[in-house]
Amino acid sequence: MIKTPYLLFLGDAPDPLAAKVAQGIKDWRPENCVGQLRLEGCKADMKLPDMTLAEARAAGARTLVIGVANRGGMISQTWKKVLVEALEEGFDLASGLHNLLRDEEDLAAVAKATGRNLWDVRIPSVKYPIANGEPRKGKRLLAVGTDCSVGKMYTALALDAAMREQGMKSTFRATGQTGILITGDGVPLDAVIADFMAGSIEYLTPDNDDDHWDIIEGQGSLFHVSYSGVTMALVHGGQPDALILCHEPTRTHMRGLPGHQLPTLEAVRDMALTLARVANPACKAIGVSINTQHMGDQEALDYCAEVEARLGLPTVDPYRHGADRLVDAVAAC
Amino acid sequence: MIKTPYLLFLGDAPDPLAAKVAQGIKDWRPENCVGQLRLEGCKADMKLPDMTLAEARAAGARTLVIGVANRGGMISQTWKKVLVEALEEGFDLASGLHNLLRDEEDLAAVAKATGRNLWDVRIPSVKYPIANGEPRKGKRLLAVGTDCSVGKMYTALALDAAMREQGMKSTFRATGQTGILITGDGVPLDAVIADFMAGSIEYLTPDNDDDHWDIIEGQGSLFHVSYSGVTMALVHGGQPDALILCHEPTRTHMRGLPGHQLPTLEAVRDMALTLARVANPACKAIGVSINTQHMGDQEALDYCAEVEARLGLPTVDPYRHGADRLVDAVAAC
Repeated sequence: MIKTPYLLFLGDAPDPLAAKVAQGIKDWRPENCVGQLRLEGCKADMKLPDMTLAEARAAGARTLVIGVANRGGMISQTWKKVLVEALEEGFDLASGLHNLLRDEEDLAAVAKATGRNLWDVRIPSVKYPIANGEPRKGKRLLAVGTDCSVGKMYTALALDAAMREQGMKSTFRATGQTGILITGDGVPLDAVIADFMAGSIEYLTPDNDDDHWDIIEGQGSLFHVSYSGVTMALVHGGQPDALILCHEPTRTHMRGLPGHQLPTLEAVRDMALTLARVANPACKAIGVSINTQHMGDQEALDYCAEVEARLGLPTVDPYRHGADRLVDAVAAC
Repeated sequence: MIKTPYLLFLGDAPDPLAAKVAQGIKDWRPENCVGQLRLEGCKADMKLPDMTLAEARAAGARTLVIGVANRGGMISQTWKKVLVEALEEGFDLASGLHNLLRDEEDLAAVAKATGRNLWDVRIPSVKYPIANGEPRKGKRLLAVGTDCSVGKMYTALALDAAMREQGMKSTFRATGQTGILITGDGVPLDAVIADFMAGSIEYLTPDNDDDHWDIIEGQGSLFHVSYSGVTMALVHGGQPDALILCHEPTRTHMRGLPGHQLPTLEAVRDMALTLARVANPACKAIGVSINTQHMGDQEALDYCAEVEARLGLPTVDPYRHGADRLVDAVAAC
């Protein structure tokens, strides 16, 4: 596991969106964030104290997390200077970038000399087993979506936070790079070898207390032809007791696939349930999460009400309206 | 592509089953087999001429294919002697073993010195794209199964052979190690990184003549919780126009998963069609292939007749009864 707390590296982020990894960590694990480190020209701000490496170390930070996407797929020399200094100051480095820290010869050499860790969360660090399909103790919930990037991670994080606030036993289980950096642990499922995908999710969500819930971050969609195999491994490896259906109503076509229409929520419910029951015959769809970020206040409420009437399931935007109704649905499960 | 023709290495196979890779090559691509090389104690026989390395080279063989499973997961010194000599004699080596040829220091060194190729077909040799879901020219057929190892590869090979015999344009597309060694080309799908699975199948089955069929070897099962993600990538990446449903009626539980029942052929048909139509709305189930190897003659015929009446699709064991009725179904598609 990546050591906390973090100093968030925002680099020279050209806009706030480029720092969305840092934003996710700040939003969902503020207690893990000691401060932020920004370079000249940085257009992102997490509203955390700006700190030098030395100040952050003095404040207890253990890992410098690259919370920003790099430009042009290169780790620039401007960044390198900070990253090398961080290793020398005693920080581990953590990154979800496509270019791996470990592939940078200077970083690898300094990390070795200083005895620090380079965490490339895009790459699995574990040899996962092949799934065995054995029932596991404890409960599991999986977020499944009509499409990629419709808010499955935020739904799972919001639900997990609300459950813990209500005193329920819950663990958010990250299956993507941002989620792993937020929590410090998880499975980078899209980088796992095909044969071990479902097994990696069994590994991620082991036996637990009878009243404990793993809230599993979804990936892709059963209806997204590029990534559906990844989603399938979550549905079978996750052995969910409950599904939350996730949707973004203003999407005009499947992400990255012009000409491919989104499925209906009903189609996702029926397909995901049929498949999930192969692994767990008791699986139920218990709620719907709508990403209403592109809708007005009333439009968002009306849309949720319409879906709720149509599907007969509690329907909210957990980020906008809170996740309490979804928590109630989990508690009733 | 692996250079043909082959000399088949049977090693010290403890029984005929250990040499099933060699048997597959001999059965389906006899024209690729110059001879066999057996060590003392070998209990397998492909009924090919026994040859020394020098004799096989003189007869035109280009690649020594390891057609036998090794014992205990090690490439023994007895084998090594032959493999090193083969490289020195001018052979490439090809293997689907779990232990890679390239990881054996002596083999790697001799291959480098002699300029020969080591083909480890268990590992992808191509950087596959992410699937884009664009419709492609030509036709595609996929074998889908109720379970793993129910005869999907043999069904696809038998269908491809019968189609070519009838003058149709057909290419068997291998997606597993044995299939790749049989044809010299393909995608080792179970070893592909999750994000690129569907893309690897798009890559394997590109645009082609309007009347050309890719006959795609299936893997796993949509109902096998360990490998269903791999199957899903075939259903979406393969964009099939036609499905053949494959089943082995004497199986008492899903392979490797005691306690997991097999799905019905109807359930596989409905699930596979619904999913396949996401990628290709015109997809149809056109026939059923039954693996009757554990049934008597009359029992096999009765079972096929019963399934045919129930599903309304031509139903045969292509290995036992021939694939002609399936070819007719393809031609009518």
